[in-house]
Amino acid sequence: MRVVVLRLGHRPERDKRITTHVGLVSRALGAEEMLLTGRDDGVVASLDDVASRWGGGFRVRQGVRWKDELRRFKEAGGMIVHLTMYGLGLAQAMPEIKEAYKSCDIMVVVGAEKVPGAVYGIADWNLAVGGQPHSEVAALAIFLDRLMDGRELDCEFPGGMRIVPTIRGKRISNASEAASKEASEDEIAGVGQEP
Amino acid sequence: MRVVVLRLGHRPERDKRITTHVGLVSRALGAEEMLLTGRDDGVVASLDDVASRWGGGFRVRQGVRWKDELRRFKEAGGMIVHLTMYGLGLAQAMPEIKEAYKSCDIMVVVGAEKVPGAVYGIADWNLAVGGQPHSEVAALAIFLDRLMDGRELDCEFPGGMRIVPTIRGKRISNASEAASKEASEDEIAGVGQEP
Repeated sequence: MRVVVLRLGHRPERDKRITTHVGLVSRALGAEEMLLTGRDDGVVASLDDVASRWGGGFRVRQGVRWKDELRRFKEAGGMIVHLTMYGLGLAQAMPEIKEAYKSCDIMVVVGAEKVPGAVYGIADWNLAVGGQPHSEVAALAIFLDRLMDGRELDCEFPGGMRIVPTIRGKRISNASEAASKEASEDEIAGVGQEP
Repeated sequence: MRVVVLRLGHRPERDKRITTHVGLVSRALGAEEMLLTGRDDGVVASLDDVASRWGGGFRVRQGVRWKDELRRFKEAGGMIVHLTMYGLGLAQAMPEIKEAYKSCDIMVVVGAEKVPGAVYGIADWNLAVGGQPHSEVAALAIFLDRLMDGRELDCEFPGGMRIVPTIRGKRISNASEAASKEASEDEIAGVGQEP
């Protein structure tokens, strides 16, 4: 079944990089789409650029109304997982969510600033990835990794560049394109691109 | 055994929030310490503040020289895992790393901007958390979650506030302190604090 990520409360002046990371993680770990409340053409352009060079069908839709999206998604039979510090623990809730995922699409809601109280009521699960403050990027990553049992890391992204795993060094297939384009900073943020 | 995270190439004007998230994830998912090349008092203050209110013994040390730290760590018998897009896949390398972790401390290296080539040579493992561009915050989170088999999410942080998992709503033990202090934005970034 498919996974959609809803990024709530993005503040362009502050959350640009974090929201970009949320989008990159969504794409890399098997989500089909990120919906963004508010507008940020810079974030959308970064994500579109990565998707066009690295392949696959990931897309971003900005300026959505979260209530409408949640309602529509549920009406279509999907289920909502809201990642929050104040939810049930992963170990407790995950078996039920994985069972649902066999037959239902899942929307993962990831907040930035304060999340409207109504979200907690609409969500099918309020899910805490640990009970300590950390990062929505990390919470999303661990949730998707657990939901898909690690299989998301082997996803194919047709039409894009592909890295060939190596012990040391750097190998990219479709190398002519790789060589001709400078990787954007967010794209490879911190995952070390120059051996 | 213990885990230390080395954050490489932090740029204060650009990486403040991402590095803060790297630090928060390190702490929340069981690392003992984050080492930071370069200096950023703001990041250190944010992380110290979280650690003092939420408990545990996590600490940050800034202005370190990465070569010295890597060398010292290896000389003391520790092993180095460098997270990079251009490494071996998680499924392939993880069994060996987990075996080493039974008797060795692990240093996880997480880069921001371009990582010096020497890091690839010094690292015991160059490890790719998926072959797609995403986020060092996500890569670190998935790595730690896999390394500790999810047990890190149940870590105790003595002396701090504690969230009581609930289906809906928000419960914090040691609530007088929780009520008297405003959570910082990074601390609860996007994991939805206000039901």
